[in-house]
Amino acid sequence: MTKDSVLLITGADGFVGQHIINHLQNIQYTNVHGTAFRPESASRLAKTLGNNNVHTLDLTNQPAVTNLLATLQPRGIIHLAARASVNESYQQAEAVLNTNTKLQLVMLEAIKEAAKQARLISLGSAQAYGVLPAKYQAQPINEEAPFYPSNPYAVSKATQELLSRAYQLSYQLDIIHVRPFNQIGPGQSTDFALPSFADQIVKIEKGQQDKLLVGNLEAVRDFTDVRDAAKAYEVLLRQGVSGEVYNLGSGAGVTMKEVVQKMVALAKVKIEIETDPSRLRPVDVPHFVADISKLNQLGWQPETSLEQTLGDILESARQANQ
Amino acid sequence: MTKDSVLLITGADGFVGQHIINHLQNIQYTNVHGTAFRPESASRLAKTLGNNNVHTLDLTNQPAVTNLLATLQPRGIIHLAARASVNESYQQAEAVLNTNTKLQLVMLEAIKEAAKQARLISLGSAQAYGVLPAKYQAQPINEEAPFYPSNPYAVSKATQELLSRAYQLSYQLDIIHVRPFNQIGPGQSTDFALPSFADQIVKIEKGQQDKLLVGNLEAVRDFTDVRDAAKAYEVLLRQGVSGEVYNLGSGAGVTMKEVVQKMVALAKVKIEIETDPSRLRPVDVPHFVADISKLNQLGWQPETSLEQTLGDILESARQANQ
Repeated sequence: MTKDSVLLITGADGFVGQHIINHLQNIQYTNVHGTAFRPESASRLAKTLGNNNVHTLDLTNQPAVTNLLATLQPRGIIHLAARASVNESYQQAEAVLNTNTKLQLVMLEAIKEAAKQARLISLGSAQAYGVLPAKYQAQPINEEAPFYPSNPYAVSKATQELLSRAYQLSYQLDIIHVRPFNQIGPGQSTDFALPSFADQIVKIEKGQQDKLLVGNLEAVRDFTDVRDAAKAYEVLLRQGVSGEVYNLGSGAGVTMKEVVQKMVALAKVKIEIETDPSRLRPVDVPHFVADISKLNQLGWQPETSLEQTLGDILESARQANQ
Repeated sequence: MTKDSVLLITGADGFVGQHIINHLQNIQYTNVHGTAFRPESASRLAKTLGNNNVHTLDLTNQPAVTNLLATLQPRGIIHLAARASVNESYQQAEAVLNTNTKLQLVMLEAIKEAAKQARLISLGSAQAYGVLPAKYQAQPINEEAPFYPSNPYAVSKATQELLSRAYQLSYQLDIIHVRPFNQIGPGQSTDFALPSFADQIVKIEKGQQDKLLVGNLEAVRDFTDVRDAAKAYEVLLRQGVSGEVYNLGSGAGVTMKEVVQKMVALAKVKIEIETDPSRLRPVDVPHFVADISKLNQLGWQPETSLEQTLGDILESARQANQ
């Protein structure tokens, strides 16, 4: 892998994809390609990647994806595209499972048929660990913990990882399995907790909302700044050990209550907090912190403080609400 | 759970289903129901269960399954139905994954909506363990081992188990997760290795075939007589701990070579053996033996000797070839 290797990012127009592209361009990668499903997203992507490096296609279309890989002959692929909402997965379990299954199968078949030299960064999720028995939760969770997913989205991410595993074992593909914990930062959809809090705080600052509505604040979570995470994906492309699984997290636990307090402290006005029952999930993991020693061994570690990230999220929400 | 509790077996016309029904009837269960997809299978089932206890339906049809559970109000459900061929799953990965996903989701939704009192015996598979790193293979595999499935069928069984886990955690359903290792005995399809060997041996005995064609004989496997396995399912219905995972195996490893030698020794003529490359899989697990201490603790253990089982399989093949 060199700075002029062809790299392909799927779902490149998404939250994590955009930050990965920024990072790759910052460190002088010259041949980064991205896919987008909708023409509007493709136009946006073209501004950073250039028209020739943006590919508008349906990633469930096998011939289209196989052709793209046959043409590009990428050295590395970061396959971010997936249906990613936990709440939606409770309502539309079958659709979420089938789509994520197909997105994975199509990419794996395309690599097998047309680009066996490509290294695939396969995106699982820490959500696959789910509601682990207490003895696993008591300490940072390492990659050998079993899967106890608590919602259909988490199952679909486990399925994607396991399909990658089956193809790697059956066809000797070069695959790195990543299980990201919560990735946060500017530009994330308000469907997620922290951007929603930031959006609400800005609306309260502007007198458009009364109280900050929150869910379960007792949960302990592991947050990584998305710009740090972007660096981890590049490290994994270059230095990850083929076939291995890597947790991607900060390694530090923080309660949702602390996160909310830090955000509220950054607000321009006094903020009143209220629990909104509709924000509580049927089941929640009490303690969820990553053991990141495997990723550390590749030379990566988080650099951005939580305060910095939360400040940037708030600033991003202020710009979005202008 | 008492002997007159309503029990429902899906895929009741299959290899394992028939043996479970035999066992439940032997020990005087009086209210056993079964489902079948095809009318011919339903007719066969009716001979043992009676017309009123056989239900012909498509288990991917949500309203049909929900209605059946609402009407029967079963106390226990053994959900055996699944697409079960490893070879087929390499050719039709998406179809196998989607069907097995749907079969599981429909049953879980039906229980959630119409029969929350039912205990579900949810069928995973030891194949989900797959090609574990060497340190796990060196000893009998216990239920805390991670998943390294090597084919799409194995992934689909992992997905089924994980969906059951997600529903159990989200909706407090009463679910026992089972991971069967190889189950063998009279009546199994010749798509599987041992029945195929038996069928070939009988054809050689009758002068209809020259040599016994085999696959990889170095692999170490764990075989359970299906009649012993049938007893385990009943034990799990009565005594399994809700939410727990149980390996179902013999706990004893045997090489495929030993199995073939034992079968050949039971043949009526001298048998010549030949490796058939088409019987080799893209990847095979070298050593695959169950740690069955959890199931042992419920009072179950295998009773039938491997010689007895292999003899019965050969006898069954002789009858089928008459």
